[in-house]
Amino acid sequence: MYNFEYKNPVKIIFGKGTIPNVANEIPKNKKVLMTYGGGSIKQTGVYDQVKNALKDVELLEFGGIEPNPHYETCMKAVELAKREKVDFLLSVGGGSVLDGTKFIAAAIMFEGNDPWDILDKPATSPVNAAIPLGAVLTLPATGSEMNGTGVITRAATLEKKAFASPLVMPQFSILDPECVFTLPDRQVANGVVDAFVHVMEQYLTFNVNAPLQDRLAESILTTLIEEGPKVLANRTDYEAAANFMWCATLALNGLIAAGVPQDWGTHLIGHELTAFHGIDHARTLAIVLPGMMSLKRENKKEKILQYGERIWGITEGTDDEKINAAIAKTVGFFESLGLPTTLPEYDVPEETIGKISLRFKESGLKLGEQRDIDFQMVEAILKDRL
Amino acid sequence: MYNFEYKNPVKIIFGKGTIPNVANEIPKNKKVLMTYGGGSIKQTGVYDQVKNALKDVELLEFGGIEPNPHYETCMKAVELAKREKVDFLLSVGGGSVLDGTKFIAAAIMFEGNDPWDILDKPATSPVNAAIPLGAVLTLPATGSEMNGTGVITRAATLEKKAFASPLVMPQFSILDPECVFTLPDRQVANGVVDAFVHVMEQYLTFNVNAPLQDRLAESILTTLIEEGPKVLANRTDYEAAANFMWCATLALNGLIAAGVPQDWGTHLIGHELTAFHGIDHARTLAIVLPGMMSLKRENKKEKILQYGERIWGITEGTDDEKINAAIAKTVGFFESLGLPTTLPEYDVPEETIGKISLRFKESGLKLGEQRDIDFQMVEAILKDRL
Repeated sequence: MYNFEYKNPVKIIFGKGTIPNVANEIPKNKKVLMTYGGGSIKQTGVYDQVKNALKDVELLEFGGIEPNPHYETCMKAVELAKREKVDFLLSVGGGSVLDGTKFIAAAIMFEGNDPWDILDKPATSPVNAAIPLGAVLTLPATGSEMNGTGVITRAATLEKKAFASPLVMPQFSILDPECVFTLPDRQVANGVVDAFVHVMEQYLTFNVNAPLQDRLAESILTTLIEEGPKVLANRTDYEAAANFMWCATLALNGLIAAGVPQDWGTHLIGHELTAFHGIDHARTLAIVLPGMMSLKRENKKEKILQYGERIWGITEGTDDEKINAAIAKTVGFFESLGLPTTLPEYDVPEETIGKISLRFKESGLKLGEQRDIDFQMVEAILKDRL
Repeated sequence: MYNFEYKNPVKIIFGKGTIPNVANEIPKNKKVLMTYGGGSIKQTGVYDQVKNALKDVELLEFGGIEPNPHYETCMKAVELAKREKVDFLLSVGGGSVLDGTKFIAAAIMFEGNDPWDILDKPATSPVNAAIPLGAVLTLPATGSEMNGTGVITRAATLEKKAFASPLVMPQFSILDPECVFTLPDRQVANGVVDAFVHVMEQYLTFNVNAPLQDRLAESILTTLIEEGPKVLANRTDYEAAANFMWCATLALNGLIAAGVPQDWGTHLIGHELTAFHGIDHARTLAIVLPGMMSLKRENKKEKILQYGERIWGITEGTDDEKINAAIAKTVGFFESLGLPTTLPEYDVPEETIGKISLRFKESGLKLGEQRDIDFQMVEAILKDRL
């Protein structure tokens, strides 16, 4: 096991009927900006629940934060918040709204010239301050509700970048699994795959003798495989929704990453597919992960074999056959949820592979837990998905 | 799953060579009281490591906190800390030193007449304030390093009581697995069993459809069964020590308890065995748990069968046979570590059972996840261990 530090002070308030608790969690005398997305919270009643709970709070609103939240949109909220001297942000929505809100919280306090530097030049422009924020989560998927990470897209340049700081961890996150009841199939399926691949990025690396972390990761994978389809089949199965929701949170709250190597190559390649073609984040992961497993089968051999055996019961055949079977099971799981896993199924032309590969060539960025995935390997991984 | 709230802001600093980091974690300009136990930290070098790291800090010392820390001892530290206007406590030792330090932190700020009320009358004398504390943990076992709970014994009256408050959670806990290298067999074995039974108290209850929590609990149990004996066999196996240490922390940091019922009957009965006969805490758990499993086999049936199958591979026989096999496996594991599991092996006379039962009769306290274990059931559980 590696040495590690772990601290996660986010307060989770979990369960049926917990949204009105938001009134107890926002500190007194704050001017609050409530951020949300395309307005689905108005149809589902979550908007009214929050507004009713906060009727004694000075509350502004900023709607329209899109999936893969845009830098340009967030900067409008920053302008509003600065003008109105907002001192608390409340994200009401899914991971995209929350990621956007985290960026807004940091950008409001940013002292440099261009807040894009938070994303583009994290080494020289770290987050030194952020206004506090809380979350009402309506969509289990990204795990953003219990971490200090956000991913932002610059529409003008088709760039999608992540940033991280403990200063943008929510003060609290309210998770009411009944929010799942009104989600469309596509968002449920995406959420299951997103959480699944988050776990895989922290688990499917190389062995550092951390059997507890391995088993915690496998616990989340197995539960997602078990509960995800239940949610998809019966949207008002509260227990399944609750189990899915808690899986998505624990998939990315730092716990299973403590003391082990992490990959995140699948995410970084996937981000480019979103940037170029607007493909849903989770769907990009469903495309890339099988290629990553296939092309990095030597480096990840021990863990892929363990994954195959413990998660899918694969014990027969040569190592290569077992790895192929583990990949096939993974693909089969994603497809069973309705997510295609190859590029042509998303109408991505082959030339996109060259464009993405070129970006990694130009940046010189090497991916993966061993930082050995160069632009040529990125190309090979994506060609595997044609 | 039940509704729940979960917040755990303790900063964990984990790994080889991390003890000197204590210098970065104690806030500036604090007057620190370093608490410790019987002095083993002086033999192991931990004392010198801490003293060297803190040579620029105003540092007082209070040694002699015993296993099952005494109220009487802690109150001497309270007196010293108040007189010297100490404003930070640093626990250097195992769970007993840390539990004592948590109580000292709360008792210093207690505004009532008698700080014993923190333990004896928690409903009317809750912890409203505590001075901040940190920990250097030298013995994996109790999980105290990442929670807000402490257990204190009043020597004068042979009473052992627990208290809990987020205000006594450590600001940080430093966990260097190399501390395990110098532990005697007895403390390692006790630590493994202590952590194991902590998990069982939160897992072996009744089913509330929380499959992720179940699997997280099983992950810790399986890893303790795997790594515990390795540590016992080879004290300088760093990886095994690290895995054991992280298991003990996660066994009682609130995570596996989130959203599920909890028992703690084994602990409350075990505390009486310590109070009357000074038996090591973990050994009292090794005695009581098999009786609890046997006598509460109906209420816990579904979970005992799941435990038997997933942890020990028990799939053959009637339910009763499978439950008996699961109990036998548990007893066998404890005994393999060197912990006897029956009362006569600890020279506890049968009359003690009557005395303990009488205490529960007089207090009217009902134990267990369904609060249905009365004094007669306590008697039956203990008679099972004759």
